[in-house]
Amino acid sequence: MRILFTDIMQMERLVRQAFVNGLSGFRSAVLVGTANAAGQTNLALFNSLTHIGANPPYLGLLFRPTTVARHTYDNIRRTGQYTINHVPPAMVQQAHQTSAKYPAEISEFDACGFTPQYTPLLSAPYVEESSIKIGLEYVEEYLIEVNDTILLIGKVLEVLLPEAAMLASGHINMEEWGSTAVNGLDTYYSAERLIRLGYARPDQQPESMV
Amino acid sequence: MRILFTDIMQMERLVRQAFVNGLSGFRSAVLVGTANAAGQTNLALFNSLTHIGANPPYLGLLFRPTTVARHTYDNIRRTGQYTINHVPPAMVQQAHQTSAKYPAEISEFDACGFTPQYTPLLSAPYVEESSIKIGLEYVEEYLIEVNDTILLIGKVLEVLLPEAAMLASGHINMEEWGSTAVNGLDTYYSAERLIRLGYARPDQQPESMV
Repeated sequence: MRILFTDIMQMERLVRQAFVNGLSGFRSAVLVGTANAAGQTNLALFNSLTHIGANPPYLGLLFRPTTVARHTYDNIRRTGQYTINHVPPAMVQQAHQTSAKYPAEISEFDACGFTPQYTPLLSAPYVEESSIKIGLEYVEEYLIEVNDTILLIGKVLEVLLPEAAMLASGHINMEEWGSTAVNGLDTYYSAERLIRLGYARPDQQPESMV
Repeated sequence: MRILFTDIMQMERLVRQAFVNGLSGFRSAVLVGTANAAGQTNLALFNSLTHIGANPPYLGLLFRPTTVARHTYDNIRRTGQYTINHVPPAMVQQAHQTSAKYPAEISEFDACGFTPQYTPLLSAPYVEESSIKIGLEYVEEYLIEVNDTILLIGKVLEVLLPEAAMLASGHINMEEWGSTAVNGLDTYYSAERLIRLGYARPDQQPESMV
């Protein structure tokens, strides 16, 4: 089947939204924790986490400023801090519920049953129920001109994770320690490891690693 | 365990690379097909596919211009066209092998055993072995100043997929029709569907959809 640009533009709005969001494949579902200047917490589900660089460590998030994630964006710009918390598969329904349009004075931590957790370094709350948690500092942002979305880039200040989740090689056992994959806006997946492959070289087949 | 920014900066280079790349969780492994002005094909593995917008349909790819993906970037800038092809789990080793540093005159299609496929609309090659294929046109790019990576944005011109892979709701059955998840640079996963959830509202629990 061949679907052209004009076909996509003629789709009913929700059909187009599901279809195009699906095209970009799997991402991780993450909860972004922030607080405003008064310490009022906010928690929002994102599927747009992006690796920007390892040295130094930077992560990106894409924002559509007109959505409920507006509280998250405002808090990050005012405090300069936020947390990214991977969602364990067992908490998918609670995490999805944070995308409901709660009023600003209601914290999604309370409304959706998550527990705020703090470290000495950040005023932004982590999600205690999450296994792999990242604390970040705002660095810069880019306004994507074609549709007014914003790519916001943060520096990794600290990572909280169970000792057993990190191998000596630096790899994180994401599947075992709780990250859920998402396709589109609403379909959640658990990931089953197929293979880890060695550095590819032109003259040999990739080696399977332990 | 708490790992600080300074701990990350002191990690051995490959350990840091594995660790920070792992933090961003699951993405989809995709093959990007391009051709130069003379029609010489190129195929490169990416894990940085990003949803930018649905209306109109835009997708983003992050480039580190100094890597092997340089041929891909050059071809896109010269021809304005490229394809994104989801990798079925059975083809992960072949797909990974495209990341080896082949000389410019060798096509990864030939070297790694993929078949170029063309439509009347694009000069860039699709991957015949892939089930879900997207043809794109270059729109704009942003240089990420913190580390000189490039976010390149393309408009979706056409999508090729099996009729049975798309539901009436617009959802794509990604797990059934062949997309592989990847964490970090080298660990591949198949995705097992947990649940599809309805639009979240403050006063009710999210509904599970068929």
